[in-house]
This record gives sequence, C-alpha cells and structure tokens, in this order.
Amino acid sequence: MFEHVHEIRIRYRDIDYLGTVYYSRYLEYFEVARDEMMWALGLPYSLFEKEGYAMPVVEAHCVYRHGAVFDELLRIRSCINDLPTSRLRIDYSITSADDGLLIVEGYTVHAFINREKKAVRPPRFFLDLLKSKWQ
Amino acid sequence: MFEHVHEIRIRYRDIDYLGTVYYSRYLEYFEVARDEMMWALGLPYSLFEKEGYAMPVVEAHCVYRHGAVFDELLRIRSCINDLPTSRLRIDYSITSADDGLLIVEGYTVHAFINREKKAVRPPRFFLDLLKSKWQ
Amino acid sequence: MFEHVHEIRIRYRDIDYLGTVYYSRYLEYFEVARDEMMWALGLPYSLFEKEGYAMPVVEAHCVYRHGAVFDELLRIRSCINDLPTSRLRIDYSITSADDGLLIVEGYTVHAFINREKKAVRPPRFFLDLLKSKWQ
Amino acid sequence: MFEHVHEIRIRYRDIDYLGTVYYSRYLEYFEVARDEMMWALGLPYSLFEKEGYAMPVVEAHCVYRHGAVFDELLRIRSCINDLPTSRLRIDYSITSADDGLLIVEGYTVHAFINREKKAVRPPRFFLDLLKSKWQ
Repeated sequence: MFEHVHEIRIRYRDIDYLGTVYYSRYLEYFEVARDEMMWALGLPYSLFEKEGYAMPVVEAHCVYRHGAVFDELLRIRSCINDLPTSRLRIDYSITSADDGLLIVEGYTVHAFINREKKAVRPPRFFLDLLKSKWQ
Repeated sequence: MFEHVHEIRIRYRDIDYLGTVYYSRYLEYFEVARDEMMWALGLPYSLFEKEGYAMPVVEAHCVYRHGAVFDELLRIRSCINDLPTSRLRIDYSITSADDGLLIVEGYTVHAFINREKKAVRPPRFFLDLLKSKWQ
Repeated sequence: MFEHVHEIRIRYRDIDYLGTVYYSRYLEYFEVARDEMMWALGLPYSLFEKEGYAMPVVEAHCVYRHGAVFDELLRIRSCINDLPTSRLRIDYSITSADDGLLIVEGYTVHAFINREKKAVRPPRFFLDLLKSKWQ
Repeated sequence: MFEHVHEIRIRYRDIDYLGTVYYSRYLEYFEVARDEMMWALGLPYSLFEKEGYAMPVVEAHCVYRHGAVFDELLRIRSCINDLPTSRLRIDYSITSADDGLLIVEGYTVHAFINREKKAVRPPRFFLDLLKSKWQ
C-alpha cells in the first residue's frame, strides 16, 4: 500500500448556489491529491511526462456524502492498494480536516501510454519507486 | 424510459495538454445534458428550484473510451430508465456526432431535497411529468 | 467592422453562492463567442491552428454591470473594429437575451504566433477573410 | 499599503493545449490570492460574509506576459495601495517562484454590498483592520 495525505482549502470558485462544492470539482481535487502523491513518491508528474509517459484516466467514480462549504479545509487521502500490472487504481477519501466528517469517497483508474499514445505496461522506474515506498 | 439527446461543441477551455477534454469536464457536460433534458420535460431546473426542491448529485461515474478533441461536436444521450422512488439515476453516453465513436459513458444518481435541505420523495409534479412522457 | 452575435444559456456550474455567474466564467464565454465568430468567418480556430498559427490572449478586460443568473439566456456580441496590423482586439458586450439588460462589457487582445511560438504578423489568409466580410 | 504574497502550484486542469495556463484561470488565482490576503488580514472572507457583507468584482484586468507551465510554482503578490472610500482595488503580479519571471499582471475592483445586495460603504471593521496593518 502506498498512501498520501494532502490538504486543500475550498475556494469561492468551487462552490455553487447551494453553498457547497460543485460536483465535478472533486475530480479536480482528486487530481491535485494525485499530483501531490507523485511528488511524495519522488516522481512529479511533469517528470513522468518527460520520461515519455502519461497516465490518462480511464474511469472515475465519486460518492458524495456531505456537502463541503466555502473556506473549509479538506483532507484528501489517496491510496494505491495494489501494484499495477496494467492499470493503476487510486482510491480517495475526502474528509473535513476540522471534524473528520466524510465528504466524498471515490477512485480513478489510469492507463499507461507512451509518446505515441499507445497503451503500455507501467514503466519499471515507476514500479520500482512504488515498491521502495510500499507498506 | 425517458430519453433526451443534446449536442455540444468542445471549447478550448475544456481541453488539456494531451489535446483532449480534461476528465472532470464530462461531469459538466452531463449537467448541461441533464439541464436540457429538464427543459425537454417542460420543467427547467430553475423552475424545479422555485417549487422548493433541489436534486443534488449523490453519486457519479464515468468511463472514458476515447479522447474528444477541440472543435469536435459531441452528442450526449441522457436516459432515465426507471421512475424514481427515492433516488433518480440518469445514464449518459457521449458519442462523436460525426462518426458515432463512443467517447464516454457514465451515470449520475440524485437525491431529492426540500428548502430545509432534508431528503424527500420525488415531488409528484415531477413524477407526473415523467409519466406523461414515458416511453 | 466585423461583428458576430452568439447566444449561450447559463449553466449551474457557472454560478456561485451569490446566485450569479462567477467572474472568471465571462472570459470563457468570450472564448466561446470568439470561437463562434471564427466559424462565422469561415475559419474555425482548429483550422487556423492546422495552418500553423495560434492567437494567444495577451490582455483581457471585463466590466461587470449586472449579475446574470442560472438558466438565463445571454447574447454575446463580439466585434472587431480594426483590421489587425500586429495585434487583434475583440470587443464583447453581453446582454440578457430577454430584456437587453447589459451584463458585462470587455475586450481581449491577441498576438499571432507560429508553430515555433514566435510572434508573427496576422496571416494573410486571415486578413483576406476579414476584409471580404468587412462592413 | 497592505501587501500579501501567496504561492500556488499549477495543476493539470489549469493548462491548455498550448501547454500553458488557460487565460481565465488567472482570475481564479487572483481569487485564491485575495482569499489568502483576507486570512492574513485576520478576516477570512467567510467571516466577512457572516457579518452581512460581500465584495463582488465590478472590474477585472489581466496582462499576460509569459505562459506558465504545468507543475510550475507561482508567486502571487496582492497589493492594496489605497484605503477604499467606496470601491476597493487590488493589484496582482504573478511571477515564477523559481526565476522571478513576470507571468501576469492585473487588478480587480470590488464594490461592497450588504445582505439586501445594495451598495454600501466599506464596513468600518474592515477599514480598521486594514489601517492597523497599513505600511
């Protein structure tokens, strides 16, 4: 298992007329958390791209438990539970940093592609990094 | 079954560095399609809100089949397959209007709440409208 | 002068807690209007790019007169008042399609760049098209 | 003068096909910087709203100097140069945190409104806070 926790504050742009975060924004929060997880792994996504790879999302899922409001601080826990053989799944849970209330749960599934946009296996340097930090 | 088809053109703001639509944008497209489905039903969402109700999303799911590119015209088919008893599920499929290629499939699940933000049953006027157009 | 009018409906994703369109969204509406103006000119922006050019924004300005609300239909008038010698300026005014109320005024200024991302003069085929439709 | 500096990292959702930040996103960055400036002032915007006020944007301006790229760290300097009598102007400059290159300059102008959405003078508690931190 490789796990990472990142906090973000909710901005005005993110909330809708109901006063809570607009539903597609959580996929953006997932991306931010994923991005920070890559930094924590020692492989910023921009570096991953420079190596000639990309990890496009092939599936995304969100379950909305409670509405998060403006100025609230959210804690996003991203977790890779299985070493990827072809695809990578990342699970997320977003809670209120203040009281731990569960806001959103979800996951994304990623393919690996090369510069020619062809599907490839997860690159070895990525797997090696994951294994070195696996718990 | 109640079904509605809506077309949207992909704008520059929607595409990312890979040249294809950023993954959270499809949830926005779903919303646009849903919105137009409500118009087709004779009940614009703003009117639904004026009646004292809202339909917050409680679950969302996307499967990404092909990347859609700038300037492409997309056809979004929204479909309600079951009359809601408590929650409403809407299924979407997005295809290229040009060649019919499947781009994205997904669904959203909605609760019904009243002005006090309490969960309620689907309002009768909504069910009656749906039944009157049911096929 | 070359002028184009395009209408868009306000979506839920666009409005904030005050119930009116979030301020950066108008720059997206400008882009949609600009995009449609290019179609009306017979030169969709994707074609412009295929010819090896881009028109990055170098300046943007917005004056917010009235808040536009959910489900409102907006009329965006885009206008090129001067044939570009180096940079292109487009003026926009957004009014309520219903009652003509002025919502937002603004402009964008664009440079022309080639595939090497170097600043160039406006391409001749673009100027010729503009002249052929000039009023 | 009251000044505040905030840093943000560029996310994938923010960049477009040219590989640089989409032009409306800078208005969102301005909002984040403004929001953090309010925290630094001791008056988070959510608290300002609880007091019965809002600061809607009535004008926004951006000059784009250089394109910022994915994963780049940006430094946003927000500055209030004059105590507001009726409207508040905030100036922003965004530079690369790495090499100080100027990316974007701009400003926003804000009105003050009360719960009835009527224009009011800047509230005294806001002016007092500003004066107490004025340099």
